[in-house]
Amino acid sequence: MFLAHGYAALDPHSPLVPFAFERRDPGPNDVRIEILYTGICHTDLHQTRDHWGGALFPMVPGHEIVGRVVEVGNGVKKFKAGDLAGVGCMVDSCRHCQNCQDDLEQLCVEGATLTYNGRERDSGQPTFGGYSDQIVVDERFVVKISASLDLKAVAPLLCAGITTYSPLRHWQVEPGQKVGVIGLGGLGHMGVKFAKAMGAHVVMITTTPEKGRDATRLGADEVLLSGDAEAMAAHAASFDFLLDTIPVSHDLNPYAALLKRDRTLVLVGALTELSPPLFGANLMMGRKRVSGSAIGGMAETQEMMDFCAEHGIVSDVEMVDIQDVNQAYERLLKNDVRYRFVIDMASLQKDAA
Amino acid sequence: MFLAHGYAALDPHSPLVPFAFERRDPGPNDVRIEILYTGICHTDLHQTRDHWGGALFPMVPGHEIVGRVVEVGNGVKKFKAGDLAGVGCMVDSCRHCQNCQDDLEQLCVEGATLTYNGRERDSGQPTFGGYSDQIVVDERFVVKISASLDLKAVAPLLCAGITTYSPLRHWQVEPGQKVGVIGLGGLGHMGVKFAKAMGAHVVMITTTPEKGRDATRLGADEVLLSGDAEAMAAHAASFDFLLDTIPVSHDLNPYAALLKRDRTLVLVGALTELSPPLFGANLMMGRKRVSGSAIGGMAETQEMMDFCAEHGIVSDVEMVDIQDVNQAYERLLKNDVRYRFVIDMASLQKDAA
Repeated sequence: MFLAHGYAALDPHSPLVPFAFERRDPGPNDVRIEILYTGICHTDLHQTRDHWGGALFPMVPGHEIVGRVVEVGNGVKKFKAGDLAGVGCMVDSCRHCQNCQDDLEQLCVEGATLTYNGRERDSGQPTFGGYSDQIVVDERFVVKISASLDLKAVAPLLCAGITTYSPLRHWQVEPGQKVGVIGLGGLGHMGVKFAKAMGAHVVMITTTPEKGRDATRLGADEVLLSGDAEAMAAHAASFDFLLDTIPVSHDLNPYAALLKRDRTLVLVGALTELSPPLFGANLMMGRKRVSGSAIGGMAETQEMMDFCAEHGIVSDVEMVDIQDVNQAYERLLKNDVRYRFVIDMASLQKDAA
Repeated sequence: MFLAHGYAALDPHSPLVPFAFERRDPGPNDVRIEILYTGICHTDLHQTRDHWGGALFPMVPGHEIVGRVVEVGNGVKKFKAGDLAGVGCMVDSCRHCQNCQDDLEQLCVEGATLTYNGRERDSGQPTFGGYSDQIVVDERFVVKISASLDLKAVAPLLCAGITTYSPLRHWQVEPGQKVGVIGLGGLGHMGVKFAKAMGAHVVMITTTPEKGRDATRLGADEVLLSGDAEAMAAHAASFDFLLDTIPVSHDLNPYAALLKRDRTLVLVGALTELSPPLFGANLMMGRKRVSGSAIGGMAETQEMMDFCAEHGIVSDVEMVDIQDVNQAYERLLKNDVRYRFVIDMASLQKDAA
């Protein structure tokens, strides 16, 4: 065991405060990573405030982690000290269920071990996330990062990136297809970049003209304002794929109307109820499909990271010091970030000084 | 023009009564059919009572029509006088949109012409359905029926049959797959027969033990009572395909839990809102899919009819005289039919006598 330093929520009502805690020493298959940057995901806010119930406190959040490998176990094959490495939403899984065997650890039948607010499979100890100086993770759950990318802007790829990349790949988005990205935030802005890099004709579907303009800057070919009934009607039955990144309950019916026959809308943002209810006829008339997707497996996360290196894709980020994380949460609540906060973990030193 | 005789609803509040009306003489591509049997679909009740709005009165319902060809236009290729023939939910479509070109006339972009409560594309005259002695239809919208099948029990195949056959084919149900049919009525009982004939392990999912026993008689391998939480949990994530025939608003969430990863639930019964709302997480955790399907194209309807001849599949029917159609509607409202009423159109003669 060794002492790690980070920031934690001590209970659902407290701000995040400096927190020291023990981490395991690296086992044979583990890598120890010095964390350089950690993205702030909206999930962090939900979990530290226990919005979904069952949270474990104290909680060190953070699952968009990048850094440098400083030590490897003697069984580690993929990494050596000095390598750049990333850790996302999970740090372990059962590894024997069908989904794990199919490289879909995120769908592990026993439940993947979350990077924070989870419990280690063997010890039962709580897992602590990336708002900290170091982390120890089995190499299966660590990805390599190209030195060609701006490392601080890579952090959000570990969650927002894979969450949007995976469905675009799984539903086989191809050059020339018309792809709609619904909502422009941490997920949506990555969806635009990936769909564009895959050769699609990308349409940003948003309520906000200003976001539409920003989407164009990010690579969108077209903007569709969802509040404009005439424009929505003009785009009816014309989309090959819709990536729905809206993070709250919303009405799917107007978006279902945008799909071509036999095409799919995939939810990646809204875990909760979709209200008002979907009308069956809106799917039946065109065999339209609604599905959902959550992050991606480790092999695919590596594939995404390589795709990003090849295409020069990173997230648009705003850097914050760890001491400012509570203010960042308040701004996140107001959607006031373009498009992801990333914590510069060097700022932890300021508390030590 | 010639005079046809049948039964019509004169307004949304009246019972069906004897009604004489004009039909067009057969054009070059038309067949004139002497109607022998017509199934009573739940839609007939909705439409004659204008539950969905916009109904045209007087209305002669009926879109599960079988009979004998008595006259053909000089351009007709598939039929000759004396052939057994069937007509389903549509009698025309635009024929030039992509869906029509793809043999999916039911999804015609301009809207297929409904067999009743629609308007003919050229004349704009109301269409009149199968509760009548004769009908004239373009041969593209007429299917051949094998003389080996019990003709009166064939009628429901034209709607209930194709509505369940088409999604089982489209989503490629295969021998050995575990297929759930949700709900046992006109649609569900056909779903069980087709899925079984396609080689699937068929599970009837119902609220009612009695219906479960009946499903076993129809060919279901297993019964799952949807109100039994323990049984539902035991079947979690085990189904390759779910055919949801429930005709009213219902909660999809418990059924989504039954699907394997990447598998589909298809709505064929519920045109209206699905309430309570679906939870996004229930799709995201397993990339599960919800879709819908409505009848099928004419080529596929013929394929289904041939499949039925090959496998000896017909509907389970209860015969009624046309004079008893209003009582049959009342029993339909109480779900009191196993599993489809079919009108013996010879009974029309009783009114003439």
